[in-house]
Amino acid sequence: MRAAIAGSDAVRGTTSPNPPVGCVILDAEGNQVGLGATQPPGGSHAEVMALVDAGTKARGGTAVVTLEPCAHHGRTPPCTRALIAAGVKKVVFAVADPNPAAAGGRTVLTDAGVTVESGLLADEVELGPLRAWLHYARTGRPHVTWKYAATLDGRVAAADGTSRWISSEESRAQVHDLRRRIDAIVAGRGTILADDSALTARSADGTADGTSVDRQPLRVVVGTGDLPEGARVLDDAAETLHLRTREPSEVLAALGERGVVDVLLEGGPTLAGAFVQAGAVDRVLAYVAPTLLGDGPVALGASGVSTITGAHRFRVEGVTMCGPDVRISAVPDRN
Amino acid sequence: MRAAIAGSDAVRGTTSPNPPVGCVILDAEGNQVGLGATQPPGGSHAEVMALVDAGTKARGGTAVVTLEPCAHHGRTPPCTRALIAAGVKKVVFAVADPNPAAAGGRTVLTDAGVTVESGLLADEVELGPLRAWLHYARTGRPHVTWKYAATLDGRVAAADGTSRWISSEESRAQVHDLRRRIDAIVAGRGTILADDSALTARSADGTADGTSVDRQPLRVVVGTGDLPEGARVLDDAAETLHLRTREPSEVLAALGERGVVDVLLEGGPTLAGAFVQAGAVDRVLAYVAPTLLGDGPVALGASGVSTITGAHRFRVEGVTMCGPDVRISAVPDRN
Repeated sequence: MRAAIAGSDAVRGTTSPNPPVGCVILDAEGNQVGLGATQPPGGSHAEVMALVDAGTKARGGTAVVTLEPCAHHGRTPPCTRALIAAGVKKVVFAVADPNPAAAGGRTVLTDAGVTVESGLLADEVELGPLRAWLHYARTGRPHVTWKYAATLDGRVAAADGTSRWISSEESRAQVHDLRRRIDAIVAGRGTILADDSALTARSADGTADGTSVDRQPLRVVVGTGDLPEGARVLDDAAETLHLRTREPSEVLAALGERGVVDVLLEGGPTLAGAFVQAGAVDRVLAYVAPTLLGDGPVALGASGVSTITGAHRFRVEGVTMCGPDVRISAVPDRN
Repeated sequence: MRAAIAGSDAVRGTTSPNPPVGCVILDAEGNQVGLGATQPPGGSHAEVMALVDAGTKARGGTAVVTLEPCAHHGRTPPCTRALIAAGVKKVVFAVADPNPAAAGGRTVLTDAGVTVESGLLADEVELGPLRAWLHYARTGRPHVTWKYAATLDGRVAAADGTSRWISSEESRAQVHDLRRRIDAIVAGRGTILADDSALTARSADGTADGTSVDRQPLRVVVGTGDLPEGARVLDDAAETLHLRTREPSEVLAALGERGVVDVLLEGGPTLAGAFVQAGAVDRVLAYVAPTLLGDGPVALGASGVSTITGAHRFRVEGVTMCGPDVRISAVPDRN
């Protein structure tokens, strides 16, 4: 299953609106003979890729897959049919498919005499490569990660507006890696006007790196006014969508319709405040640099809270060092 | 040495301006036969306490001590003399005494035929129980820890000024434990006017806890105006010093003269900004709660920085969870 998860992880950002699934085929003796992952929309699912890789060695073997194999006929035939046709005797999957149209894979397989087990490393898959897609499948809304970099005293820029570089080279590299694996980056028009951000995945030193960055997320600018001609976000490095609204629900509906599953919200403070207030932030990713400014703008603008008991409550999911910075990941505390 | 460090740690906050030292005596066979720690000023040093505890079993044995034994005659006779008189054959200490008046202990012991080793667990002692005193001995200035509790977005209170409780019960308990082991708590007059803080060590639920809190730090209020009659900080729960200045160097000089070694700076933002600007914060202790407010005051006021390259640079020394909160400890990055 770890190999399947790694396969799943490797195709994140390339499969939406389909889930980035990984699949490993073991032969009858338990040797790994096939590995596959979901191809871009319209292409084969992970199970089919792995079966092709395994060839006839799949007969009598086991398929280990991060998500319950689909039983429905979408743009591709159902994976359950391919598994049964290949003579697989056992299927082990991590997470059940929450999508009613695709679910039923377990039943189809069992009815065909295939042994089915589930739940193996389910947490790792749910919080890892399938996190955004599972959220999308369950809620109908893209998964939103709000990412920001701030000083220890919460500032995102100095008094004069300068912010290069608040966070370390290691943190910037990690953010660009994150951008590469996301479907869309969302920023407010104000941020574009202030910073002329390109909103592309780049190498850590800020230059475009054509060799390692082979795909770019959709760039989404939110705001009612026009974008200035010549703005970097309008260059041809990636597709850009300008949504003339600041209402989070409208932004997410528009993105969901385009098949966007995994969204990175990159500011500014006003837009982030609106998303937090709307309950539309599914994860906070804070890169905290060990510096102090004592002045300058903060990361989050008004989010509808006037008194301490109304604070938006989160739960820390993980804290790691990223070079000299502290990276805090937090998710809504629904309790 | 770990037992000596624990002994040292246990008397933190009771020994200033003397160092909180711990000492363990091993007999000739290596069995622990004595334990001692520095008594309040005028009382015995750790070595003498441990020797008294060991009695005649110290003869031919080893003294393990967190700080180089003193060779000078202050309010008490030199510890080196006591160790030699007790027939100790070997002394192992962690950290050399940086105080020229007290140093020379190693030479005196060696000249008397005692084997001396040093450096054992030195880092643990330097960053632990002797940290503040070593800073004081080296710089002549009290060690300042600036502590604050903030939300993930850097707020110390909501828009209406409410802040009870931004941090968790676990974090508050840890702060009260810290207050118990410190010499003085410093706060600005504005904080006293706003919150009527008592600045005492209490149990985590905010009530005084007479059984467990057996000492209180000196309370120091900084600011030129008068304090309101009936302010809690003027009650008789602990001594209070009102310094009619906001200049950090003057505050620290006044405290140093009183033998204050270890200071906890608790705000507000203006005073903290002045201390940061003056380079007078030796450690930042941030309790970050996983909540978002989007409005309200932030922890640090103006600290003389107008552009990002002028940011005060720190280095993260440790990150731990404290209940649901993230506790970040950072020290000035002098590189």
